[in-house]
Amino acid sequence: MAVPPPTRRLLPLFLGVFQGALLLFFALFVTYDKPSAQAEDANLVANQLYGTFPLFQDIQVMLVAGLGLLLTFLPHYGFSALTHNFLLLNFSTQWALVLQGLLHRFHHGQVHLDLHNLLTAEFAAVTVLISVGAVLGRTSPCQLLAVAACEVPVYLASEWAIITRLGVLDVGGTITIHVFSCYFGLGVSKALFGAAQRPVHPKETPTPRSDLLSLVGTLILWVFWPSFVAVLCQPGDAQHRAILNTLLAMSASAVTTVVASSLLESDGKLSPGHLQNGSLAGGVAIGTVADMAVPPVAALALGSLSATACVLGFRFLTPFLVRKLALRDQCGIHNLHGLPGILGAVASAVAILVASEDTSGPHFSQVSPTGGNTSEASWGQWGDHGAGQQALCQAAGLAVAIGGSLLAGLLTG
Amino acid sequence: MAVPPPTRRLLPLFLGVFQGALLLFFALFVTYDKPSAQAEDANLVANQLYGTFPLFQDIQVMLVAGLGLLLTFLPHYGFSALTHNFLLLNFSTQWALVLQGLLHRFHHGQVHLDLHNLLTAEFAAVTVLISVGAVLGRTSPCQLLAVAACEVPVYLASEWAIITRLGVLDVGGTITIHVFSCYFGLGVSKALFGAAQRPVHPKETPTPRSDLLSLVGTLILWVFWPSFVAVLCQPGDAQHRAILNTLLAMSASAVTTVVASSLLESDGKLSPGHLQNGSLAGGVAIGTVADMAVPPVAALALGSLSATACVLGFRFLTPFLVRKLALRDQCGIHNLHGLPGILGAVASAVAILVASEDTSGPHFSQVSPTGGNTSEASWGQWGDHGAGQQALCQAAGLAVAIGGSLLAGLLTG
Amino acid sequence: MAVPPPTRRLLPLFLGVFQGALLLFFALFVTYDKPSAQAEDANLVANQLYGTFPLFQDIQVMLVAGLGLLLTFLPHYGFSALTHNFLLLNFSTQWALVLQGLLHRFHHGQVHLDLHNLLTAEFAAVTVLISVGAVLGRTSPCQLLAVAACEVPVYLASEWAIITRLGVLDVGGTITIHVFSCYFGLGVSKALFGAAQRPVHPKETPTPRSDLLSLVGTLILWVFWPSFVAVLCQPGDAQHRAILNTLLAMSASAVTTVVASSLLESDGKLSPGHLQNGSLAGGVAIGTVADMAVPPVAALALGSLSATACVLGFRFLTPFLVRKLALRDQCGIHNLHGLPGILGAVASAVAILVASEDTSGPHFSQVSPTGGNTSEASWGQWGDHGAGQQALCQAAGLAVAIGGSLLAGLLTG
Repeated sequence: MAVPPPTRRLLPLFLGVFQGALLLFFALFVTYDKPSAQAEDANLVANQLYGTFPLFQDIQVMLVAGLGLLLTFLPHYGFSALTHNFLLLNFSTQWALVLQGLLHRFHHGQVHLDLHNLLTAEFAAVTVLISVGAVLGRTSPCQLLAVAACEVPVYLASEWAIITRLGVLDVGGTITIHVFSCYFGLGVSKALFGAAQRPVHPKETPTPRSDLLSLVGTLILWVFWPSFVAVLCQPGDAQHRAILNTLLAMSASAVTTVVASSLLESDGKLSPGHLQNGSLAGGVAIGTVADMAVPPVAALALGSLSATACVLGFRFLTPFLVRKLALRDQCGIHNLHGLPGILGAVASAVAILVASEDTSGPHFSQVSPTGGNTSEASWGQWGDHGAGQQALCQAAGLAVAIGGSLLAGLLTG
Repeated sequence: MAVPPPTRRLLPLFLGVFQGALLLFFALFVTYDKPSAQAEDANLVANQLYGTFPLFQDIQVMLVAGLGLLLTFLPHYGFSALTHNFLLLNFSTQWALVLQGLLHRFHHGQVHLDLHNLLTAEFAAVTVLISVGAVLGRTSPCQLLAVAACEVPVYLASEWAIITRLGVLDVGGTITIHVFSCYFGLGVSKALFGAAQRPVHPKETPTPRSDLLSLVGTLILWVFWPSFVAVLCQPGDAQHRAILNTLLAMSASAVTTVVASSLLESDGKLSPGHLQNGSLAGGVAIGTVADMAVPPVAALALGSLSATACVLGFRFLTPFLVRKLALRDQCGIHNLHGLPGILGAVASAVAILVASEDTSGPHFSQVSPTGGNTSEASWGQWGDHGAGQQALCQAAGLAVAIGGSLLAGLLTG
Repeated sequence: MAVPPPTRRLLPLFLGVFQGALLLFFALFVTYDKPSAQAEDANLVANQLYGTFPLFQDIQVMLVAGLGLLLTFLPHYGFSALTHNFLLLNFSTQWALVLQGLLHRFHHGQVHLDLHNLLTAEFAAVTVLISVGAVLGRTSPCQLLAVAACEVPVYLASEWAIITRLGVLDVGGTITIHVFSCYFGLGVSKALFGAAQRPVHPKETPTPRSDLLSLVGTLILWVFWPSFVAVLCQPGDAQHRAILNTLLAMSASAVTTVVASSLLESDGKLSPGHLQNGSLAGGVAIGTVADMAVPPVAALALGSLSATACVLGFRFLTPFLVRKLALRDQCGIHNLHGLPGILGAVASAVAILVASEDTSGPHFSQVSPTGGNTSEASWGQWGDHGAGQQALCQAAGLAVAIGGSLLAGLLTG
């Protein structure tokens, strides 16, 4: 925290230059869609807006207020956690807009901006917000911004490889967002703090007050999670199913977390950390299968399993990682995003294999998190290579997300 | 709070068995609606979803964050209040889904799950969350879960008797939810703590800090209450009117609470407890008449009256009940849910009688909180027995809600 | 705060009489729209409701929870700030409903109430909530209510002069709401506290805890601001553009605030006050141009500029005003609403002049904050007097807002 003045000056310098470059880029290349045929299409535009905008707002609340408050569990770090989370969200979204524009969206020299672009840029920012959870409270704002600057392009590349090349089905971002950002964050943490095994600082012990605010953050995330999973689904049945599956999974997570936590703690009391994270594990895991035609019981079971994995992870795996690998994970992102994400990827492979046996295919509708127009590609590929191959693709996507991000995170650190 | 270890083990055991049974039930009986004709109906499904889902999310925010924070007014009970509220919501919703499935929805051996079912299950959970307000901070999680396990089936029976049998008009759940859960909770409190007149513990005195957080909860509930009242109304004019009536009633409540509270307190200062509860009283009372064609002034008057009743209840009735009946009501649910609920029921009878004189009937549209298909029944009955009889039905419904729930609560306790 | 008992009695007396008069007014004059042709129009009504109601709820959250929490930065004033904000919102909305009914909406002796009326009445209440920020913590509830009673009619007159007479384009209320209420509040502050230069009370220094809650309020406002700007836009492209422009401006504000604040503070640390206000400056400024066909870069630039102005204002202008003019501005409303509002007005004049050069006009769609039916008037006027004159009108509107409100505020005080 006590950074010397020259480093202090780095932050405004870096951010100022970035803002200037952003303005230049937008001035040269970015425009809005032409309001082509206002009269007949106005209703259509309005309806699309009314369908997407409330979900977009829900996601904004999750990231700004929910995640921000969840991170305030360190008592002396509350204000900084909210601020850094907010700054990183804005920086990463802007940075992702620039990179997306440069990479994917050059049509006739102009980038056409709409709510959908902003949404996918925000998804890129989510990966940064998750990753920095591994190093929270031990890094300066400049270090956090450097992590963000590196992670966004790696995410875009990994997302392209997993969704567009491999055709992985992952509407809720379980693999592309949660698993990816978890291992990226662990890589950064290992690279930054691997050598120095600093003991836990007394400032880092949560107080009842900070736990309360943090739980409020969890509850906000819990409530709005269905919007996050369903926002990119195809409107209609698939979106309805995604919402229901997510609601069921999260409800099961909440109850199972209480069971698992009170069994594991010697005095039978609930651990605040377990509650704050386990209740959300189902939402992480359900992302891959949310819009598939799985039965409701599968969503419940996945929610229960992932909450159990999350609580077990906090109890046994996190101390193990610290002891054996000197790997510190401040917020336990491996337990909330890593383990449930892997469970979700496995579940999607199983669901695809099971579904292929009785009804052969066309229950799946899928849209890539970075764009609407890759959905036909996914459909085509799915038609091409059958259920077995699709299940393999899911596994390959998972491997890419873990391996690539871990490596990139280490290099970034 | 200092429960011995064997009791501690009861909680995970009970919840674990419940989760297992839930999984079994869902695996055997529950499925989603078939996506029958995806192409043509997709727009319809999407539009229904966009109409209902934002209101559903609002209600989730109310229950998880709003009600949870409102209950944190006891300074050392904040974290537990949030946790217990959250656990009870999830447990009761799941339990209501099972019971609703068993009781009402067996078509061809399969329960078809959709957002509407989840919503009505959540309404059943609301009764539990209100009732436990009477015994908050003095009960273990196991006791709370036992109350929930008993209250949900009683609610479903009472709701069936009141709405389906008697044809009571109560779109916002004033009688079926608020009055019912209030007297159920009082019954439980009497049965559990009737004998032992424990003095008020110093831990149970709110601090400025806990009052602030609790007020934030009130404000969240206040903002989203129109969604709660209007979510089951018929789309169109009735829903629009329900929203406007609720907004007017709550606005009048907020101002009247300040008037009543500053008149009653000897130093002229506002009492935090009055503000936290009185501002919401109008929302409780308006539920019965929200979608009826009452003039706007009726909504304002009902809001003012119920806020006055609520503040007077806190000032005079709660101490009286403690002194004379040894009946302790921790959160004052009788003042917030009982008195305004009774006012609302009376108002609905008056509104029906008045409306029948000038325009004869067809201004009322009504949907049962537990299902869409009883609305025709209500319509038919209303056609059958005229305004006078309908007004009697409202009174009978109120009597059933009070008597039945008080008895059931006592037995549960 | 230590007001003698007779003054204490003024509050309930005044409010009670007001509530009675409100009931009388509503009973005599206000009714709902007739549900004329329920069958065919039900879908239309439902769709309009689903388009407006979520945005309306967002704005309610902003005003009740967001602004309320933002004002809790004074550590011993948290509960009062929330309460007074809530009371003023309700009182001013009801008062604006009465005045709007009396002034504008007498058709056939009846005022027809709908969600749109409530929304415009709430906009009038916003001006009160902003203005009292200048005198917060130093005034009794009665004084605040007196300010509200005076400000609402002045706002309605000023809004009529600016929008209806001058035809100023200001969809987000930059001039009519933000600039107006800022100078009104400064006038009141000067009149009330101009003579006595009371030193800053130690109670008025924020603590880390109160800064944290206040920042949560800022974040809530930040998230929902696009709804505030876009709610009265014409559905379709204009509304979509307004949302995107606001999102871009606010994102730029957030990042630029960090840059400016860390450059200005000698130790390079971020000032909580800068963050709490600067992040929102872009939303204030963008209101005039949000729905115009400006390029995205203009929204980013305006957001950056206004955040810089806001931070500079806190650092240099506020101390200057206190020293030279004995003008105290408790919450810094001049920096958050005044300076960015003036920037926004200038930007709108520039945008109009630039737009007229390449495409001549019909990119602008505009609705008055107080009613839907003035939009044709604006269109007509715009057709009449050309771009240069429209730009002059924007400047005249700004002058009216500043001069008129400052004078009225001084008189009110």
